[in-house]
Amino acid sequence: MPHDTAIARLRNLLGDRLSTSDAIRDHHGQNESYYPVTLPDAVAFPASTEEVSAVMTICHEEGCPVVAWGTGTSLEGHALAFRGGITLDLSRMDKVLQVNDEDLDVVIQPGVTREALNTELRATGLFFPIDPGANASLGGMAATRASGTTAVRYGTMKDNVLALEVVLADGRVIRTGTRARKSSAGYDLTRLMVGSEGTLGIITELTLKLHGQPEAISSAICAFDGIDAAVSAVQMVIQMGIPVARIEFVDAMSIRGFNVHAGTAMPEMPHLFLEFHGSEGAVAEQAERVGEIVAEFGGGDFQWTNKPEERNALWHMRHNAYYAAKALRPGCWVLTTDVCVPISRLAEAVTVTRADIDASALEATILGHVGDGNFHCAILVDPDSPAELAEARELAHRMNARALAMGGTVTGEHGVGLGKMKYMDEEHGAAWAVMAQIKRALDPSNILNPGKMVEVN
Amino acid sequence: MPHDTAIARLRNLLGDRLSTSDAIRDHHGQNESYYPVTLPDAVAFPASTEEVSAVMTICHEEGCPVVAWGTGTSLEGHALAFRGGITLDLSRMDKVLQVNDEDLDVVIQPGVTREALNTELRATGLFFPIDPGANASLGGMAATRASGTTAVRYGTMKDNVLALEVVLADGRVIRTGTRARKSSAGYDLTRLMVGSEGTLGIITELTLKLHGQPEAISSAICAFDGIDAAVSAVQMVIQMGIPVARIEFVDAMSIRGFNVHAGTAMPEMPHLFLEFHGSEGAVAEQAERVGEIVAEFGGGDFQWTNKPEERNALWHMRHNAYYAAKALRPGCWVLTTDVCVPISRLAEAVTVTRADIDASALEATILGHVGDGNFHCAILVDPDSPAELAEARELAHRMNARALAMGGTVTGEHGVGLGKMKYMDEEHGAAWAVMAQIKRALDPSNILNPGKMVEVN
Ligand SMILES: Cc1cc2nc3c(=O)[nH]c(=O)nc-3n(C[C@H](O)[C@H](O)[C@H](O)COP(=O)(O)OP(=O)(O)OC[C@H]3O[C@@H](n4cnc5c(N)ncnc54)[C@H](O)[C@@H]3O)c2cc1C
Ligand SMILES: Cc1cc2nc3c(=O)[nH]c(=O)nc-3n(C[C@H](O)[C@H](O)[C@H](O)COP(=O)(O)OP(=O)(O)OC[C@H]3O[C@@H](n4cnc5c(N)ncnc54)[C@H](O)[C@@H]3O)c2cc1C
Repeated sequence: MPHDTAIARLRNLLGDRLSTSDAIRDHHGQNESYYPVTLPDAVAFPASTEEVSAVMTICHEEGCPVVAWGTGTSLEGHALAFRGGITLDLSRMDKVLQVNDEDLDVVIQPGVTREALNTELRATGLFFPIDPGANASLGGMAATRASGTTAVRYGTMKDNVLALEVVLADGRVIRTGTRARKSSAGYDLTRLMVGSEGTLGIITELTLKLHGQPEAISSAICAFDGIDAAVSAVQMVIQMGIPVARIEFVDAMSIRGFNVHAGTAMPEMPHLFLEFHGSEGAVAEQAERVGEIVAEFGGGDFQWTNKPEERNALWHMRHNAYYAAKALRPGCWVLTTDVCVPISRLAEAVTVTRADIDASALEATILGHVGDGNFHCAILVDPDSPAELAEARELAHRMNARALAMGGTVTGEHGVGLGKMKYMDEEHGAAWAVMAQIKRALDPSNILNPGKMVEVN
Repeated sequence: MPHDTAIARLRNLLGDRLSTSDAIRDHHGQNESYYPVTLPDAVAFPASTEEVSAVMTICHEEGCPVVAWGTGTSLEGHALAFRGGITLDLSRMDKVLQVNDEDLDVVIQPGVTREALNTELRATGLFFPIDPGANASLGGMAATRASGTTAVRYGTMKDNVLALEVVLADGRVIRTGTRARKSSAGYDLTRLMVGSEGTLGIITELTLKLHGQPEAISSAICAFDGIDAAVSAVQMVIQMGIPVARIEFVDAMSIRGFNVHAGTAMPEMPHLFLEFHGSEGAVAEQAERVGEIVAEFGGGDFQWTNKPEERNALWHMRHNAYYAAKALRPGCWVLTTDVCVPISRLAEAVTVTRADIDASALEATILGHVGDGNFHCAILVDPDSPAELAEARELAHRMNARALAMGGTVTGEHGVGLGKMKYMDEEHGAAWAVMAQIKRALDPSNILNPGKMVEVN
């Protein structure tokens, strides 16, 4: 067996929390996208920072790859141990360690999930806003620099992590940042670790900013005749500085998916889904102003509501967009791609992407967190058709190329993983080599999620 | 002359934009704090990225230190070439390159100052909010991760830089980030450069986020019987999530300084200065809610106004706090220190600091951007008294030690420079060595602002 010395030493350390069983390896070889199942040699379930450190020390000595695992919801094959070695599953480190309500922060272990955290916080009047839809672990969300529907108002993981504890490749344990809201003391190692996808260190503790639960929340929905009108309305809302909490675009094909998957009967037209947070007065004012903008762009029948059950149904539907897309073609694989462009280019980017899909033989949905200029495309592929997969890749490729040509990025939030490696050179140019220099400095034997993010050889 | 080969080669490159004159070297040997004048061997005034790159290539080959210079307003001796070599003055790279009003961003050269930028933007309806008081260069502000009065609402430089162009130690030119609002593509080199104080690269271009000029602005002022009441009111405002644009604490001694320096006749009591941004309705609502909180904490005579002239006078006074402190003791040196603590500890941190000053033989003012938990102390020292300087250092030292003990940082915004080097080890522990690893990877011959930020030997 490859890495058998490392695995034997890890078994000594962890006992039955080191597994080589097929079932467990298989679970950790899966992914939420179309990448082939890829089994690690073993799966470790550490229970503490000390254990993570001990694991890293052993793997460092033995040259054994270590791929962190949160909940496995990332969409570009990030957590697949495609060069073998062990998967380090952090789901047992799932404690909320400290709720500092006076300081609006919380200290947690990396395996705490977004939903578990918000359940824990409910009574405090505070919440953690970042919402990537999936019930991901906070460690994984930090590692992918996740964002989602609320980033337009509350920022991404980059903006909401105050401090981290990280175990480095050689087992050293460091703390980055403090509980102070800001600091100019030294290099921003926190932001260096956020988004590093497990290639620079293992996050073993996070201090996160919290926000007050809004006094009032309302949601709204509105249909448009065309993509251009819907997206142009979004551009105007952002340019006017209206502090919407969510502003989501879903195209007609996505609506068709919702109708099939959730049994709704919405008109199959491009829509905006919105949410407003604030005082009663502020929420009403925001909704009214957005209503005016939407009307200007021909948006029909702008409806807004304060009813929590209607709002929850709306976001539940939105969060299931991926599965709704799948429902359009039972048994299909979904190739999801995620780009982000300057907001002035958004309408063009979405329109051209839609036309490109329509000209292809494939079905796909487009939807996005358009307030940030971020949108996704979910392309439905017959798993048994290499031709379809090839065509889907071509569609995705052109979408990425357009985003770059528009001064944007090949991933607004999903991250690099395996799928976006091929664009790193073009997006970053000479800066990509600088990333590799940093990787080499911090992980000289290249054991942390090797083969991802940078090329070190 | 030290570095004479490097200087000869630079003169070939730059002609009379390389100066070894005493007057120019002397200007670049000054600082806004109490550090002794420290002359560089020469001062270079590059006019383009290409020239900066050529300068770095030469200095890299010759092992000549390079210390970037924006406007020299940093407060911890950051820009002093205390190991000799050249000062790289970026003030001639002062062009606004692109105003993208639809995208709420702007592309500028590093020598553009905060005030020049906002003058340029006035007609667009947009503004750049970060305001460190001094009319610093944006390159310098990024390099120190500056913030100031508006950070409580708009964040710090970390939150408002979208992308950078950076010349590395060996002359390579890289671009970090894009004009897209968010990205998960790779290590966050932008945030690594922001706050690196010229030790990792020279910033030659910045893409900054802009914000819409608020529809309505009002300001307010309020006096309190004691520090504790004033700061506790701030804690409550933050915990309630009221989106104040500015919330500044100034202690009684600072007010005395204003009265002396600006000829005002304010009661010598602790005060809060506030500003509100938003729609007419939102601003009125915020002011009202803050008024209620302030009253709860015994704040007297909460006055708010929409009049721009009153508001400008207020912030003009606040921005001159440093010179007002100096006016309390003509001819004195000012030792400024800057810490940031979790907001729940702020009242205690400020109160204990005030008591510590009162028990000393020295005068000092305390004031701060308290919405972030950030406050400063300006200690007035007789330049001819080593005993006073020693006592001032002791006071500052205890303030820093308390900040660390409270889970805070030794600098919320001024940065490390020379003054805070001695705390880096304690604040960062093992993470400080990681910063040095990064420095060594990117600047192996240690020519970029050597001796600052990290210890590489
Ligand atoms: C239906 C659906 C919708 C989604 N929508 C969004 C969306 O709107 N926005 C968005 O941003 N994402 C979205 N995602 C993607 C996904 O939820 C994120 O990528 C998530 O942040 C990953 O978290 P995880 O715990 O599942 O991590 P994993 O998938 O387990 O791991 C992701 C990466 O992080 C690393 N990692 C995990 N934990 C740690 C740790 N503790 N320390 C260091 N590295 C670690 C792994 O090695 C891997 O490289 C969606 C996913 C699905 C399935
Ligand atoms: C009265 C007064 C009040 C102040 N109040 C505040 C405040 O409220 N908040 C706050 O944050 N600061 C405050 N400051 C500090 C000061 O304004 C900041 O530190 C400022 O950000 C420095 O900008 P600068 O252009 O003057 O840089 P400089 O002082 O010239 O340089 C600062 C550092 O940045 C580096 N640097 C400069 N330009 C570049 C570049 N292009 N690329 C790479 N490195 C570079 C230098 O090498 C040096 O290490 C105050 C200063 C004064 C005098």
